[in-house]
Amino acid sequence: MEEEEEAEMNNQQEESQRKNAILIDGVVLNGPAADSKSGEKFVEEVSKIIMEEVVKKASDATEKVCEWQSPEKLRTLLDLELKDTGENHPKLLQLCQDVIQFSVKTYHPRFFNQLYAGIDYYSLAARFITEALNPSVYTYEISPVFLLVEEAVLKKMIEYIGWEGGDGIFNPGGSVSNMYAMNLARYKYFPDIKEKGLSGIPQLVLFTSEECHYSVKKAASFLGIGTQNVYFVKSDDRGKMIPEELEKQVQLARNEGSAPFFVSATAGTTVLGAFDPLNEIADICEKHNLWLHVDASWGGSALLSRRHRKLLRGIHRATSVAWNPHKMLMAGIQCCALLVKDSSDLLKRCYSANASYLFQQDKFYDISYDTGDKSIQCSRRADAFKFWMTWKALGTTGLEERVNRALALVRYLVDEIKKREGFQLLLEPEYANVCFWYIPPGLRKMEKGHEFWEKLSSVAPIIKERMMKKGSMMLGYQPHRGKVNFFRQVIINPQVIREDMDFLLDEIDSLGKDL
Amino acid sequence: MEEEEEAEMNNQQEESQRKNAILIDGVVLNGPAADSKSGEKFVEEVSKIIMEEVVKKASDATEKVCEWQSPEKLRTLLDLELKDTGENHPKLLQLCQDVIQFSVKTYHPRFFNQLYAGIDYYSLAARFITEALNPSVYTYEISPVFLLVEEAVLKKMIEYIGWEGGDGIFNPGGSVSNMYAMNLARYKYFPDIKEKGLSGIPQLVLFTSEECHYSVKKAASFLGIGTQNVYFVKSDDRGKMIPEELEKQVQLARNEGSAPFFVSATAGTTVLGAFDPLNEIADICEKHNLWLHVDASWGGSALLSRRHRKLLRGIHRATSVAWNPHKMLMAGIQCCALLVKDSSDLLKRCYSANASYLFQQDKFYDISYDTGDKSIQCSRRADAFKFWMTWKALGTTGLEERVNRALALVRYLVDEIKKREGFQLLLEPEYANVCFWYIPPGLRKMEKGHEFWEKLSSVAPIIKERMMKKGSMMLGYQPHRGKVNFFRQVIINPQVIREDMDFLLDEIDSLGKDL
Repeated sequence: MEEEEEAEMNNQQEESQRKNAILIDGVVLNGPAADSKSGEKFVEEVSKIIMEEVVKKASDATEKVCEWQSPEKLRTLLDLELKDTGENHPKLLQLCQDVIQFSVKTYHPRFFNQLYAGIDYYSLAARFITEALNPSVYTYEISPVFLLVEEAVLKKMIEYIGWEGGDGIFNPGGSVSNMYAMNLARYKYFPDIKEKGLSGIPQLVLFTSEECHYSVKKAASFLGIGTQNVYFVKSDDRGKMIPEELEKQVQLARNEGSAPFFVSATAGTTVLGAFDPLNEIADICEKHNLWLHVDASWGGSALLSRRHRKLLRGIHRATSVAWNPHKMLMAGIQCCALLVKDSSDLLKRCYSANASYLFQQDKFYDISYDTGDKSIQCSRRADAFKFWMTWKALGTTGLEERVNRALALVRYLVDEIKKREGFQLLLEPEYANVCFWYIPPGLRKMEKGHEFWEKLSSVAPIIKERMMKKGSMMLGYQPHRGKVNFFRQVIINPQVIREDMDFLLDEIDSLGKDL
Repeated sequence: MEEEEEAEMNNQQEESQRKNAILIDGVVLNGPAADSKSGEKFVEEVSKIIMEEVVKKASDATEKVCEWQSPEKLRTLLDLELKDTGENHPKLLQLCQDVIQFSVKTYHPRFFNQLYAGIDYYSLAARFITEALNPSVYTYEISPVFLLVEEAVLKKMIEYIGWEGGDGIFNPGGSVSNMYAMNLARYKYFPDIKEKGLSGIPQLVLFTSEECHYSVKKAASFLGIGTQNVYFVKSDDRGKMIPEELEKQVQLARNEGSAPFFVSATAGTTVLGAFDPLNEIADICEKHNLWLHVDASWGGSALLSRRHRKLLRGIHRATSVAWNPHKMLMAGIQCCALLVKDSSDLLKRCYSANASYLFQQDKFYDISYDTGDKSIQCSRRADAFKFWMTWKALGTTGLEERVNRALALVRYLVDEIKKREGFQLLLEPEYANVCFWYIPPGLRKMEKGHEFWEKLSSVAPIIKERMMKKGSMMLGYQPHRGKVNFFRQVIINPQVIREDMDFLLDEIDSLGKDL
């Protein structure tokens, strides 16, 4: 009966639409174009697939980490081509299944390949909300909640850095954070740069360690400074910048007539996980009036652990800090903050363009909440929200436990590596990067000369290929500063258990013992 | 019975874990730290809230577009503070509800405030998948599917631009696309710039119209060129760059001894929706050997409409194009491509840093698929995927219909504005921006002198405040190039119907007739 009534109403509506139909530019304008019911159903069905195929399998180590296919093969397995006509829902749902099937499961307990891993259920839920609401964070008018959330998160991060105040902005990546800082520093020393550019300014040079992230070079190039004006300071055996060498380089640059302005120290280097000695570097920066930026994209999260925050001793003396909660704290790609100690609106003065269509001056609320003009972007994602949700859910102590647990697992793995024949640590890790060689039985008796290292260098790539094709786990390898290919194992995910560490070593041995 | 067995098994597991418990650095390492079942349930519950409160309400015009609260008040309504201890699930679910409640509904059929709007169910489903899989698109090893998808989408976009080949990269925003292009251009003319920076290079100058997006200025500043080296070319009454004026400015710069290198034309300006005459501009660029970048962030989507692609006539002659499918094509913030005509790997040569930990040269697959080194970012989101999904679902014809429908609604609205007393168009729109004044009854008889314009300038802000507080709709206003505050209405969402256009005008009249 009800259904009949509804059908009747629909008929009447359609009838009335036909009567009022207007044809404009060849388009019939009656009723909405999109069938919202069918769209809603599609979203619901895909959500179910995601729950079953991703969320509920995320903690299951017996699943494959990846189902490897070569690019050529994968191209034939997926129907990638975009056509004139659309596909029906069953076909689209199958495509969604395929996309999931052939994607790498970065949330898998045995995914150790990058500086991010795991699934954080709270952050994920927040990300679903953000995607559904589709905000852009530039004005309070459009993003009231997300602007206040960003403010709250930045405030708390600043507190953990140890500054009394400051400012900051979430942006798309640690690389971009480093660019922000570099540009901010040169603007502070040479405010004319914003309008006049680099011409007429002495040759700017900046300093970072040999172990820094490659984005420092990219930033120098992008900002017009040039990569050859990045002075790479020697690091010690553990990967830490040597302060005396920094001082020497600064003197050298001064003697050459250049203008040193910026030091990018690293707290948690990409390969070795090393922490530069921030206090000593800060002394030099103060002495020479240099901007001290700390790229703590990877290591910053240790600040939340009372046990491990000593790794970043001296960070409160930094002028700016890059910190990516999407790495150790699992906020989801991307969640990256640039934080600055300055409280005099330096960010806004440096970056503002005062677009009148967006940042109207005659709004009816306090426009100091319109923080979009601090950004090099126009549209900007609400990245702070996902981290906020996790922090709300776990509290600082919950985040601290994650860091402590990951680093305790590192200790366990390191002890196992030391016990086992054929495994050799590169160095005692300070953080969550465990770097080691696997020496297959055939090489164990060899003298450690040229031939040995040459043969060893081919071991990690072969084992990597085998593990990818098997799908049992994923970890990275690389050559690094004269050292031949070694594995870099990164521990983040709280779903990782001791047994996964044992498995990892067993599996490497099993995949490589014939080499 | 089954439950009992399960409980018994769990007991045994716990017992065995206790036996094997290892205490390292104060952390007990038995079993995973996170309770995955409870996390999965949380994700499920939030997904339900999203379906009910967002997705199923998205097409309902009777809902409020926003529930306005002042920053001060909203702060007290939301529990923003991050604390030492976490919150329980009921509290977190309430927070999720609150976040949705107080956020602006950018998908609402009466949200006309920005250059994006609406909900695309296919893109949304794809975004949920991306968030769940949490990929980072730099190497094929980590993102096999998403790299191939990006390749397929770029290829198709290049086809619609009309190039025979080319390259491109998705990145976080049109502003960033414009930066990419500007840096690429200077690298092409002065390849030494990557290493040596701007010193020793003649003063670079670039050209864009007065109506360009503010990001061109931001880019010039960020890249070290300086905003005063951006030459703003006069536009005509419709907001289009005047080619003769461009030619004059280029000559002027040459006479001043500067080095013109780059023209940023705009296809779809931010405020007026104007399209620069690309063919005439291309002639000048060819003559003077300048890089022609077209910022089609907003207007690019018209390329998919056979009826409207003439707006971009000549775009195939561009050297690079910025095009944001997250605007007219509703792919979700953000989905932005920079496309370049070059097929000689210019992007890679300009941006590569060859990080050995990520882009190993001894991988077991064709490393030309590792496109991450084309980017200024390291981690990068899989933004192409959401657009790919929509394109798959609707086909090119479906996307074309969306564009055609939006622009047909514009025609309808324009006709209504012309018919109604008290409404005055600024200009005939070419695209989806409808710019108009509302003149309240009290001003209609006034002479159009200084006092009239001064009074009129306060009308839009007051109406805007009233509509926000009522929550009935959202559209923007701004002063622009000597014109006092006028409304800018943007039509995108296929859920918008003619009746919403009528409502919009009625509502403005109703909110402003006492002014």
